[in-house]
Amino acid sequence: MLTRRDPGSSPWAFLSLRTHGGFADGLLALSFHRWIKFEEKVEDGGERWSKPHITTLSLHSLFELRTCIKKGTVLLDLDAHSLKQIIDAHVLRPEVRKKLTSVLLRTPQHHTTKSQLRIVAELGALKNQFQKKIPAEAEVSNILVGEVDFLEKPFIAFIRLQEAVGLGALTEVAFPSRFLFILLGPRAKVKAYHEIGRAVATVLTDELFQRVACQAQDREDLIAGIDEFLDELTVLPPGKWDPTIRIPPPKCLPSPHKRYQRGKTQQLSGALLLKSRAGPEPVSEELQRTGRLFGGLVKDIRRKVPWYWSDFYEALNIQCFSATLYIYLATVTNAITFGGMLGDATDNMQGVLESFLGTAVAGAVFCLFAGQPLTILSSTGPVLVFERLLFSFSKDYSLDYLEFRLWIGLWVAFFGLILVATEASYLVQYFTRFTEEGFCALISFIFIYDAVKKMLSLADNFPVNWDYKINDVTLYGCICNSSGTGRSRLPPKQRDNTVSMIGWGLEAANWSLLTRTECLRVGGHLVGNSCNYMPDITFMAFILFLGTFLCSMTLKSFKTSRYFPTALRKLVSDFSIILAILIFCGIDAILGLETPKLIVPSEFKPTNSQRGWVVFPFGVNPWWVCLVSTVPAVLVIILIFMDQQITAVILNRKEYRLQKGAGFHLDLFCVSLLMILTSVTGLPWYVSATVISLAHMDSLKKESTTSAPGDQPKFLGIREQRLTGLVVFILTGVSVFLAPVLKYIPMPVLYGVFLYMGVAALNSIQLMDRIQLLLMPAKHQPDFMYLRHVPLRRVHLFTLIQVLCLAALWILKSTVAAIIFPVMLLALVGIRKAMECIFSQQDLSWLDDIMPEKDRKEEEEKLRSSQEKEESDSEDVSRAGKSCLPQMSLH
Amino acid sequence: MLTRRDPGSSPWAFLSLRTHGGFADGLLALSFHRWIKFEEKVEDGGERWSKPHITTLSLHSLFELRTCIKKGTVLLDLDAHSLKQIIDAHVLRPEVRKKLTSVLLRTPQHHTTKSQLRIVAELGALKNQFQKKIPAEAEVSNILVGEVDFLEKPFIAFIRLQEAVGLGALTEVAFPSRFLFILLGPRAKVKAYHEIGRAVATVLTDELFQRVACQAQDREDLIAGIDEFLDELTVLPPGKWDPTIRIPPPKCLPSPHKRYQRGKTQQLSGALLLKSRAGPEPVSEELQRTGRLFGGLVKDIRRKVPWYWSDFYEALNIQCFSATLYIYLATVTNAITFGGMLGDATDNMQGVLESFLGTAVAGAVFCLFAGQPLTILSSTGPVLVFERLLFSFSKDYSLDYLEFRLWIGLWVAFFGLILVATEASYLVQYFTRFTEEGFCALISFIFIYDAVKKMLSLADNFPVNWDYKINDVTLYGCICNSSGTGRSRLPPKQRDNTVSMIGWGLEAANWSLLTRTECLRVGGHLVGNSCNYMPDITFMAFILFLGTFLCSMTLKSFKTSRYFPTALRKLVSDFSIILAILIFCGIDAILGLETPKLIVPSEFKPTNSQRGWVVFPFGVNPWWVCLVSTVPAVLVIILIFMDQQITAVILNRKEYRLQKGAGFHLDLFCVSLLMILTSVTGLPWYVSATVISLAHMDSLKKESTTSAPGDQPKFLGIREQRLTGLVVFILTGVSVFLAPVLKYIPMPVLYGVFLYMGVAALNSIQLMDRIQLLLMPAKHQPDFMYLRHVPLRRVHLFTLIQVLCLAALWILKSTVAAIIFPVMLLALVGIRKAMECIFSQQDLSWLDDIMPEKDRKEEEEKLRSSQEKEESDSEDVSRAGKSCLPQMSLH
Repeated sequence: MLTRRDPGSSPWAFLSLRTHGGFADGLLALSFHRWIKFEEKVEDGGERWSKPHITTLSLHSLFELRTCIKKGTVLLDLDAHSLKQIIDAHVLRPEVRKKLTSVLLRTPQHHTTKSQLRIVAELGALKNQFQKKIPAEAEVSNILVGEVDFLEKPFIAFIRLQEAVGLGALTEVAFPSRFLFILLGPRAKVKAYHEIGRAVATVLTDELFQRVACQAQDREDLIAGIDEFLDELTVLPPGKWDPTIRIPPPKCLPSPHKRYQRGKTQQLSGALLLKSRAGPEPVSEELQRTGRLFGGLVKDIRRKVPWYWSDFYEALNIQCFSATLYIYLATVTNAITFGGMLGDATDNMQGVLESFLGTAVAGAVFCLFAGQPLTILSSTGPVLVFERLLFSFSKDYSLDYLEFRLWIGLWVAFFGLILVATEASYLVQYFTRFTEEGFCALISFIFIYDAVKKMLSLADNFPVNWDYKINDVTLYGCICNSSGTGRSRLPPKQRDNTVSMIGWGLEAANWSLLTRTECLRVGGHLVGNSCNYMPDITFMAFILFLGTFLCSMTLKSFKTSRYFPTALRKLVSDFSIILAILIFCGIDAILGLETPKLIVPSEFKPTNSQRGWVVFPFGVNPWWVCLVSTVPAVLVIILIFMDQQITAVILNRKEYRLQKGAGFHLDLFCVSLLMILTSVTGLPWYVSATVISLAHMDSLKKESTTSAPGDQPKFLGIREQRLTGLVVFILTGVSVFLAPVLKYIPMPVLYGVFLYMGVAALNSIQLMDRIQLLLMPAKHQPDFMYLRHVPLRRVHLFTLIQVLCLAALWILKSTVAAIIFPVMLLALVGIRKAMECIFSQQDLSWLDDIMPEKDRKEEEEKLRSSQEKEESDSEDVSRAGKSCLPQMSLH
Repeated sequence: MLTRRDPGSSPWAFLSLRTHGGFADGLLALSFHRWIKFEEKVEDGGERWSKPHITTLSLHSLFELRTCIKKGTVLLDLDAHSLKQIIDAHVLRPEVRKKLTSVLLRTPQHHTTKSQLRIVAELGALKNQFQKKIPAEAEVSNILVGEVDFLEKPFIAFIRLQEAVGLGALTEVAFPSRFLFILLGPRAKVKAYHEIGRAVATVLTDELFQRVACQAQDREDLIAGIDEFLDELTVLPPGKWDPTIRIPPPKCLPSPHKRYQRGKTQQLSGALLLKSRAGPEPVSEELQRTGRLFGGLVKDIRRKVPWYWSDFYEALNIQCFSATLYIYLATVTNAITFGGMLGDATDNMQGVLESFLGTAVAGAVFCLFAGQPLTILSSTGPVLVFERLLFSFSKDYSLDYLEFRLWIGLWVAFFGLILVATEASYLVQYFTRFTEEGFCALISFIFIYDAVKKMLSLADNFPVNWDYKINDVTLYGCICNSSGTGRSRLPPKQRDNTVSMIGWGLEAANWSLLTRTECLRVGGHLVGNSCNYMPDITFMAFILFLGTFLCSMTLKSFKTSRYFPTALRKLVSDFSIILAILIFCGIDAILGLETPKLIVPSEFKPTNSQRGWVVFPFGVNPWWVCLVSTVPAVLVIILIFMDQQITAVILNRKEYRLQKGAGFHLDLFCVSLLMILTSVTGLPWYVSATVISLAHMDSLKKESTTSAPGDQPKFLGIREQRLTGLVVFILTGVSVFLAPVLKYIPMPVLYGVFLYMGVAALNSIQLMDRIQLLLMPAKHQPDFMYLRHVPLRRVHLFTLIQVLCLAALWILKSTVAAIIFPVMLLALVGIRKAMECIFSQQDLSWLDDIMPEKDRKEEEEKLRSSQEKEESDSEDVSRAGKSCLPQMSLH
């Protein structure tokens, strides 16, 4: 047990309990138990430690322990350096002392038939592995209980040593011992002794009692400590609980500070039972206005600079390697998708190559200098819609598209810089959980929808002949027909009319040697009822698509499976998507069907030969265009600001436990500068992409590793660094050279990854939990904190409003109105504001955050005791990873 | 609370707790709690009951309760009929009494803003639904605590009424109240009062305290009861447990009987800690030898006759409908599969139609008269191998196959009857869990293997052109070629050499109009590189196969999902396989591809026209054949006996909780008589089929429905009846007429069902748990009872030996030696016997059953106290459905 040198840290106690039974052939150890934080016992047969579990005691044994301390020997600050000295310190009859020495100094021995040598070897092997988990400053407490035949009444001793000393073979680990409890008694009561031993151990693992035990001056202090301990016990009624059940350690434990205070709050009056949780969170440091021009930007830079080097060396972890590959593939796929659509929309003035180049440059610059380098930049839907409109407008009015766009971009950048200068980003405080989740859910749905849509369009490109009849195999075919003959216009179905075959004669024979491409090149036509069908490809594509998705899901959740060692599971889980991609690329390669593959541009030149790499501001368009551009620029800056900042809010959520702080102003500053760069070079415009950024963060999650047996791994935060993003975008840039490798990756596999990303992002928001609640009978609903405090009807109403907003946004997004979509997010903020009329602040504080402006701080502040603060902290955690709910289920 | 009129039944107590707070505007109810078996509270906002959970109390509040009972008013057997009378019975100052009356008679009111009307309406709606769950004889206990401003010191009363009376609006349900606890005190301590109220409620839900409370003569009796209660508490240490966690009710609760005894066993000596669990189970009644000829058979019939009518009317349940459809489809598929293989093996002397007819007749007869009517009969692998050998032997020696077979069958039946007469079935006691599981695992693996093999053979029948190049579409084709021309012998690949096309001229044109069947009929040949390929079918088949399997698994496990009401989930789970089949038949029908379908014979005549419906014993073969037949008959009877009885042992496992008993002798008797019938009519021979029978039982599982909130549904047994089996076989018989419906069912769907059945049967055995343990690090292993008692190394060794045996059996089964496979099961029994040299009886008793012959009963009997018996009973349950493990996990 650790003497709590540092009262703030979690205490480390190591306790071992040995129970002995007296037998004809000498003393045998009946059982071994140990406590680090939780109880473990050597199972029958002596070869394994049980799973760590909460110690459950009978109250009876605790009372007996109290009697033991009252009646037995208590030696505090004994000056002894070995077990023998300790025993000698007792006033006992010499012959008893002698026997006692022989009993206690005996090395532990199990009652199995196995050779002792083997046991020692095994426990030794475990020991090394195990010792690592215990901090160096830990101290051991030893408890020895048992029955012997030379005693008539129990011998009880509670000993605190002046100096912690190593007691050799007595303990499993080589740490010094401080406390010792010995209970030896006459035979036939060993089970009761054993229970008392467990009770001592439990009391000694208690942090509050540890303090008492360390400072106790006499027996009475110890008894007072035990009484305090008793008073705080949680008890389970007999008959409603099976005491043999081993309760696994909970995910979260109350902090000792809380326990100090619990006694006090016990006596609070009923008025406080109804106390409101309402009241806004204090504004985070990142969003406080300085009132100076560029004040926020300067603060962001000051906050970020000290972390800059760590942003690189903290990336040295295998997890980052996996994250890089995963996000690289997502980014490349995204670049191709958006590049293709931009190419369609702008007659290839911005095509796939521009998309690659822009993504690489903008992304890399952003990762190097931005406030939140975990962000992944991408083109977004609204920007695409804007470009399409702009291009057709330019065409209609014979304006030069790129030059027009350059001016808009410059104005947008200018407006952006003004927003940075005026610290406009502080407005993001109005994006509460309601707005964030609406946006995040929408973007995730779009991801999922797009993935499925692309798969369906694949099915259109590789059509299946659903009416294929096996018996008619002789009637199917596709031949190349010279377009010179009139017959080439025959509808394919009429190939059955085989008279046509005869008419061709020798010429037809030559044509029929041509492949599809050759045929079309020489001007032939494909005639026949199998020309339009491609067997098997569509089915294969769907198998790859769903397979990749399911495989990613399964491998990701492998971390929490029961199989294989933790390290392996973690590795598999970290590399889950990469593994899934490799597996299905492998399957595709082995089967060898011509599924559509990832084809990246392999030459470095503008997609449209009419454009160069620099756009000049004047020349083609009339001079006033540069002024007119302000109008669309206002629209675009709203679009960029909303898209950028709401994503930034989502990525900087408190529940991700980011250590290095956000940089809303700096992010916007970077995006504005990049607007200039991309406008001048005629590359697409970029803002933060919610789903890919979330996937990026998700693949960089840190969890605590070394901990006491039974301790749950804790989410520690994200590996905040700039390197993964940077490498992703550098790789995107050099994808031109990676084409020979990338061409083995089938597109359906990548769409499967997109589906996974969408689903993963959806699962990360509370809204989905609440939607699931709609389908659950009340008795099966999980014990969410907000369900304990907000009536179910209210929760459902809140969910319903959110779903309706989502549906409205979806409809909006599907029409041309998509361009004003970001503005509609402002409407969401308004709706959220209006909801204050329907919902009480109390309810909203549980389901959402409180909006900032209500200036009721003073009155609220009084109610918010420090204890309450702590509560709300732990709630944040529980909202975040759903990781710390006071909820339990039996299997 | 129920006065325990029937001390054996589980007690029903209904407790309600109301906590009041004194406010300026009158008295408000702060919280409502209720207990039926477990605690529920009205959550904040007053609109929902929480999930039922174990009450956790602080010890402090229990001590305070003790003080309350000591200091407060205790009125036992008060003669009052309304709340007012009760209050009047107290000796109180009149003005306090008046105020008290007004406080206590007020109807409950929540502190929400909602209109009271709505609350009443809602709680009323719930009430009706809820009242049904409480047995009619239940009694209510009311607890009222609160703070009021007119009292200076607490007013405490514990009241037992002489007659239980209805107290009107005080309770949620209209049951009479017997106990009443009132605690009203000055302000500012309502939380403490509330906790005391919960403590009273908890104590009053305790069965042992209920007895005390009902029989108590005075205050001291009550205090003694509380002390007894305290002594038995399970306590959780503070700091290691968060008291706000709501612990869900465990799956199993210790019986009150056990609790009486626990106190006694507490003081047992250490020697008993090591006591052996070894010692054979007493032989079950079904297998005790009478020593009389046909004694066992008579006993079986005597046991079964009283149940006979219930075997029919107990089938009136929707679950039976689902089971019938499911097992029917499985049986039909099985009949087709075996019929096809038998047809191959015997030159169609026994074909698909014989298989259908035999299955129908034998199955129906068996279901009507057998000892275990849940058994489904089927052909089995070893019988198939034997028929193949017999047929080729007959051919080689020019014997008449059916006549030879008739004699063998008659001899087998004769031997079977001898085995019945001599009660040989008692030998099945030697089939321990080790042997059962080996057999069951093997049969399940064969099921899975066969399902996959059939799917792969489908892929062979519908080959995919893996080398298909989209670009070469013009070069693929398949045409019908007149076999008259020399060119028809051209290998298909040479179709590219299109000169051949020209040579045909007009004649070729006519040929090319023919479909595949027409072409082959008129003697044409199919020429071309696409003749052998069938697009899409294979992929579609695999999608149907895996889809059906996964869908069945998902729907089956839907029962334990959190969504939708229990009744719906149960329905979906019961119909899971039928639903899965319908869904995938639907998908198949919509897509319309020519997947292979279920084709049953549609005409009633022998498959081979050379045979009739009756086989005559003499005529073709020489007379001595009837004597020689004894030799193969000995082999077949061993085969039949082993196959039949080991399946019967598996189906009659204790863990299925069958009520109507087994009938090993009767089953064998039926099988023997059916041997005569099937031999005479030349139909296949039948024995019990493990996997399908297990599926049959699995689809007929009963679970308890009405229970207290939080009570886990209990497995009650199987719907033991004869009707489902009977209808299945009647349907099989009339399948000839069902052909038009059945032809819509694709074979891959049915193979998916077979895969499901194999996997489900595998999952039902402990061996699979232990194999999974091999892959789990010790700390993640579930808390199986045997792991607490048997060293892990031993468990692994046991598993390994079992797996090796399984592998050996598998290899054997795959060779021609399959015919001696049942004999090898005897070898398993031998190996199990030999394992007694390696494992201790103690270990084997946990991992397996104990074999019968060791006559150590006398010495063991002494150790087996009744308490131990109970333990092993609950272990049987936990082994069975893994349903009752003292294990818990946190989410």
